[in-house]
Amino acid sequence: MTSAKERLSWWNPNIPPLDGRAREGARDRDAQLTKPPGSLGRLERLAQTLAAIQSSSHPSSRPAATLIFAADHPVCRHGVSAYPQAVTAAMMQNFLCGGAASSVMARHLGVALRVVDVGVENPYDVPTCHDTTPAAERDGWEPSLLRHDAAATVAGDIRVEDAMSAQTFELALRAGRDAVDELPPDTRVVALGDMGIGNTTPAAAIACSILGATPETVTGHGTGLDRSRLLAKIDVVRDAAARAERCGPLEVLRKVGGREIAALTAAIIRSAERRIVALIDGVIVTAAALVATRFEPQVVDYLVFAHRSREPAHGAMLETLGVQPLLDLDFALGEATGALSALSLLDLACVIHRDMATFADAKVPDRDST
Amino acid sequence: MTSAKERLSWWNPNIPPLDGRAREGARDRDAQLTKPPGSLGRLERLAQTLAAIQSSSHPSSRPAATLIFAADHPVCRHGVSAYPQAVTAAMMQNFLCGGAASSVMARHLGVALRVVDVGVENPYDVPTCHDTTPAAERDGWEPSLLRHDAAATVAGDIRVEDAMSAQTFELALRAGRDAVDELPPDTRVVALGDMGIGNTTPAAAIACSILGATPETVTGHGTGLDRSRLLAKIDVVRDAAARAERCGPLEVLRKVGGREIAALTAAIIRSAERRIVALIDGVIVTAAALVATRFEPQVVDYLVFAHRSREPAHGAMLETLGVQPLLDLDFALGEATGALSALSLLDLACVIHRDMATFADAKVPDRDST
Repeated sequence: MTSAKERLSWWNPNIPPLDGRAREGARDRDAQLTKPPGSLGRLERLAQTLAAIQSSSHPSSRPAATLIFAADHPVCRHGVSAYPQAVTAAMMQNFLCGGAASSVMARHLGVALRVVDVGVENPYDVPTCHDTTPAAERDGWEPSLLRHDAAATVAGDIRVEDAMSAQTFELALRAGRDAVDELPPDTRVVALGDMGIGNTTPAAAIACSILGATPETVTGHGTGLDRSRLLAKIDVVRDAAARAERCGPLEVLRKVGGREIAALTAAIIRSAERRIVALIDGVIVTAAALVATRFEPQVVDYLVFAHRSREPAHGAMLETLGVQPLLDLDFALGEATGALSALSLLDLACVIHRDMATFADAKVPDRDST
Repeated sequence: MTSAKERLSWWNPNIPPLDGRAREGARDRDAQLTKPPGSLGRLERLAQTLAAIQSSSHPSSRPAATLIFAADHPVCRHGVSAYPQAVTAAMMQNFLCGGAASSVMARHLGVALRVVDVGVENPYDVPTCHDTTPAAERDGWEPSLLRHDAAATVAGDIRVEDAMSAQTFELALRAGRDAVDELPPDTRVVALGDMGIGNTTPAAAIACSILGATPETVTGHGTGLDRSRLLAKIDVVRDAAARAERCGPLEVLRKVGGREIAALTAAIIRSAERRIVALIDGVIVTAAALVATRFEPQVVDYLVFAHRSREPAHGAMLETLGVQPLLDLDFALGEATGALSALSLLDLACVIHRDMATFADAKVPDRDST
């Protein structure tokens, strides 16, 4: 890493400070609710965190939105994924038809889902709502697609060349920023996700470059590589990371990341600027969060880490960030599924904070009355 | 523990075997869904577990119900709780008025809440829906109270005498069995909870007696005891556990448990008989689950452990049971709050299993097509 802070000529993010008074207000109310102090543990602290981020002593988890950024990775030619690259495009259709895991979750949770194409190579149809699943009645829920200008760019094979030219990088970052800007103004929480066959390879390369970790400790089985292909993937990660040695976080991202990871990085920073809680999914979104926090350290306060993935790079990055995700359900999928799984906990934290009776209201004797 | 299995003259539970075929059916469908095999980790396994319990390859988490069993504990006279005994009765009103944490959670989740009084000492009003919280609009949600015959019994101070006479014990067990029998016939999941000031003391005594643990390792701060009172509580737990040495699980429960813990034990066993998934809350409900599984070992297959509490007896019992709860949110409350926090994960597991597209449906290339 360079010590000199990198700057983007076209974007100088301005992260507002957390609102300590709103946090205190939320904490004061928590102390009056009919339960022993702190006995709802992380749910109480979540409500306080949301209050500080949202600058309101009445924190809220809704409206919430899901943004999934999707792109392909030429590094797939080295066999780093168990699935063919064509799956990225096929999954675009699946998201939009309501058949993907995150589509099912988002619909169930009443959360809008927007898929942002920032570089999917294969063609796909934009479905006209021919559902693929029998039970998928729409209830007015409709995923949306944004095909960003970044989708027309060409990516590089990170083993041998930069993932993005300066121009492509800027477009990818803009895609993330624009997607957050296009969320409804009252959005309180955004669940972030990724789609891109092969993208645990750039995520591992980012972890190596920024954390100084060895490829062996951060490279994982992804969607299900066998042992011999895992060893080949480690070599790819090593070659890529070597190309980004001693680079600043944004340069690491440009060289060994990917367009969807760049878009996620900008989306994370933009969410903090807008006081929107960013619900961080698995290893890919966490790689973006790591870059974002190295570029703008105070961003970390605006993030809620949802889920601990099976992929080893995830644990290494979470440890460096000093955060403990809400859930550990042994996922290895991405696509915002971890983020969406945790949204219900944010809902509970906020509804408890809002609706529980105080000791005074309910005439429950407090501890001091013993 | 005695090796001879204890029997109740009036109740000989009959736990059906899990349905392995339904589990296989659910697993087969899981393997066809548009995600790498097993990539949704515990949510996939939850759907399979529910299928086996419910004997249906279409597992469901709804309708769900919450049962909270409440009783007081004469052992409180030794200062084992940070709160006065009067709180148990005050909380009965709070549950029924919608202001308690579990009331707020149950209403938010659309789950019926029934509070079963099996021995609350102080009087309380049965409210006529004067809400205590401003935002508590009822949406048709209405908690209900059952004052069981067990409520009229007298409990013993477990430090010096049995918690329950044989007759009281039978009434308390019947209360749990009856409460499950009175659930709507289509109930798929029951979230179990407790209320009873001082009841981490009997829970710790049960852990000592059944696990052979020392009082120091399983006695905790409960709702917030300071250090000197914790030491006094350890002495109480030691005295109680000494009274139940070499007893079978039901006799341990009768001697050093409590009426709500006995009711929970019977409710857990009855749920298994009826193929209803029992969602196990914190340390109190887990103590009941431990007794239930020592009495009827196959019951453990019907339980979903929701949450890991801060109380040390909980960790010890979970380890012995060989289970890993879904959540670890640093709660120390009980009252079904842990169980209700996990219900959304059961919902997601079932909806994913039901609504996701298969590789064939969505025309997504599978691994074999590389």
